[in-house]
Amino acid sequence: MTRVELITVGDELLSGLVLNSNVARVADALGGIGLGLSVVCDVSDDIPEIVAALRTSCARADVVLCSGGLGPTSDDLTRDALATLAGVEMDRDAGLEEIIRARYAEWNVTVPDLALRQADVPRGAVPVPNSRGSAPGLRLSLGQTTIYALPGVPRELEAMLAEHIVPELAAGLDGPRPVTATVRVALSGESSIATALDAVDLSAVRVAYLALPGDVAVRLTGPAGAVAAAADAVAQRLGAAAYSRDGAGLPAVVHGLLRERKASLAVAESLTGGMVAAALTDPAGASVSFRGGAIVYATEAKAELGVDPELLAERGPVDADVALGMARCVRERLGATHGVATTGVAGPDPVGDYEVGTVFVAVDSAEGSRVIRRSLPPRRELVRTLTVVHALDLLRRHLLGLEPYELTG
Amino acid sequence: MTRVELITVGDELLSGLVLNSNVARVADALGGIGLGLSVVCDVSDDIPEIVAALRTSCARADVVLCSGGLGPTSDDLTRDALATLAGVEMDRDAGLEEIIRARYAEWNVTVPDLALRQADVPRGAVPVPNSRGSAPGLRLSLGQTTIYALPGVPRELEAMLAEHIVPELAAGLDGPRPVTATVRVALSGESSIATALDAVDLSAVRVAYLALPGDVAVRLTGPAGAVAAAADAVAQRLGAAAYSRDGAGLPAVVHGLLRERKASLAVAESLTGGMVAAALTDPAGASVSFRGGAIVYATEAKAELGVDPELLAERGPVDADVALGMARCVRERLGATHGVATTGVAGPDPVGDYEVGTVFVAVDSAEGSRVIRRSLPPRRELVRTLTVVHALDLLRRHLLGLEPYELTG
Repeated sequence: MTRVELITVGDELLSGLVLNSNVARVADALGGIGLGLSVVCDVSDDIPEIVAALRTSCARADVVLCSGGLGPTSDDLTRDALATLAGVEMDRDAGLEEIIRARYAEWNVTVPDLALRQADVPRGAVPVPNSRGSAPGLRLSLGQTTIYALPGVPRELEAMLAEHIVPELAAGLDGPRPVTATVRVALSGESSIATALDAVDLSAVRVAYLALPGDVAVRLTGPAGAVAAAADAVAQRLGAAAYSRDGAGLPAVVHGLLRERKASLAVAESLTGGMVAAALTDPAGASVSFRGGAIVYATEAKAELGVDPELLAERGPVDADVALGMARCVRERLGATHGVATTGVAGPDPVGDYEVGTVFVAVDSAEGSRVIRRSLPPRRELVRTLTVVHALDLLRRHLLGLEPYELTG
Repeated sequence: MTRVELITVGDELLSGLVLNSNVARVADALGGIGLGLSVVCDVSDDIPEIVAALRTSCARADVVLCSGGLGPTSDDLTRDALATLAGVEMDRDAGLEEIIRARYAEWNVTVPDLALRQADVPRGAVPVPNSRGSAPGLRLSLGQTTIYALPGVPRELEAMLAEHIVPELAAGLDGPRPVTATVRVALSGESSIATALDAVDLSAVRVAYLALPGDVAVRLTGPAGAVAAAADAVAQRLGAAAYSRDGAGLPAVVHGLLRERKASLAVAESLTGGMVAAALTDPAGASVSFRGGAIVYATEAKAELGVDPELLAERGPVDADVALGMARCVRERLGATHGVATTGVAGPDPVGDYEVGTVFVAVDSAEGSRVIRRSLPPRRELVRTLTVVHALDLLRRHLLGLEPYELTG
């Protein structure tokens, strides 16, 4: 069994300034080849602290991943810690220096001297290419342990794991390569999914859950045949709530359904203030099916979109018919086949009789319209995030001819 | 200086199943009395792993906090690990047993035998009351180190920290408490900021950088007087790029400037597809100054907003005058004093003669209008994210009567 430990370097992790989301990224990448993390250690930007953590991990692990502290500034100390740990000098790598200069040229910015620190390599270490940033990674063998130093920037870390480190680790593993399938599930809690899956035999695969607000990924890892069978069984057990089997997110799934139907979409957003549209324009190629939208944050903006002013005066901005009106008006205004709308109370204060967390989401098309009302946990960020999931899922179900998601227990 | 380390126990942290948000809770509680975490270690639900982590931390820390693993189920092993570490027996505490029985009686539930495990105390340890749950905490002295075992459930952890542990630690501290100031900087790279700050004497404070795309936070920690002087010096050295000194983000800063001027805002977005509006509606109270906006992703949507169709036909959607037209039209349509607009090429493909990464950002108001053109690194996600920062920063500078940010290097 290969023991892997992770050291994450950065004062900002210890101060609580940022959540250490790289743990999930690393665990996810390792899970794909059937490996897991035994220990994660967060340490500050301080050479003796980094060295102590590396020494403790190297004494017991086969692989030590160390993320962060590879940038150009004076608090980026992982390179120096590795040199101290190994008792070696630091050399400046001419090839890396050239890559860094080229990357800055792409930005039309003169290379600051500090940035060239990123070309420094402890003697005996091997640089690992960074396809998304200027700080290269490093690989260093120490006794029986292989140390990988990785950037702390999430997208750079992800790319380096996928492109270099996971393939290198996989090459050293015996037996058939495990495969992974990710079933994604909208609007069901992690524990209700787990309870539902109690009835499914998943003994032949390793199961991991990754929970985002309103969106849970069930990751199945193991031999190819067992994973395919397990993904079938999981998707069947979870029914309409399981919206993808290849890890694709709701925006990509919705775009796929719209494209298949040669349909087009416009959105009208109140409390989500652009988040639904931002999610829909995240995938490349969004312009094939996405027309645009209206952010009607102020009540007058809803009237300007075409929602009946008498209805607005009578019911206020948080209302089922107002949501339906928004969906219809934005669809007509932008000449789309489908319209989606959100209105509700994100907080911190109630609106009229409506508590924080009350939201209405509507979909409108030539085939008909639909509106749902939900009471979400009364925290602003969560209300907005969950409303986006409800809007995308309502549209998905409408396109598939399914009933809207209903809260069950 | 009191050294504090945190051990968080739980398989779910290592699998990436949940983010370790307790780090921020503990850091926040400790920060209030001027203490910080030196190391955080996540370990699995396994007695030898927990014991190894406790042993490593006890060898160097004055206080070791250990959260999680205090519940009633078979994977709750922190009590057993403490007994193993200290080499002592486990006793069932009659007082705790009574409290647990009373708590279950309150819920009208018979006490399961498993729940009574929570009344087990390693000999020599002292129970710490849990005002929000049934699992008590534990305090245990081992050599020079005090170990506190805390529940992993966030609200129970927070209450136990606030009611017992922080007061106990505070009672043992001498001297003045350190404070923190965070200067935030738009559109300057981490290394150019660090280079600029080479000229500033920051020896009396601790400096940490947190870099997001286009947005760097410089965090200064130390004695109150030194931190205030350092924040002044940093802000002065960085000039107009330093947009806040209290850690507030660009959306909050822009809202503050709009409110001071009794101004209002509307946005028109093409390539950012709602991200500017989503950022502006993130802070509570956004509706005071934010009216709404138009997401004009398709070219026809730009014409529908009121941008001159001949201009669009002649120049295409990526153009300085189109950006200016979008800002003016959305401002007029929504009756706002200020309008902001984005258009450009997010990729993956070029548009007309424009390469991926070419963007135009415009601001329009009664006092005048302004448009900037930028060439951003040609990666879709980064182009969109950086364009949001450019849009908010252009508006900020317009409101303050400053020139737009220019790339200097």
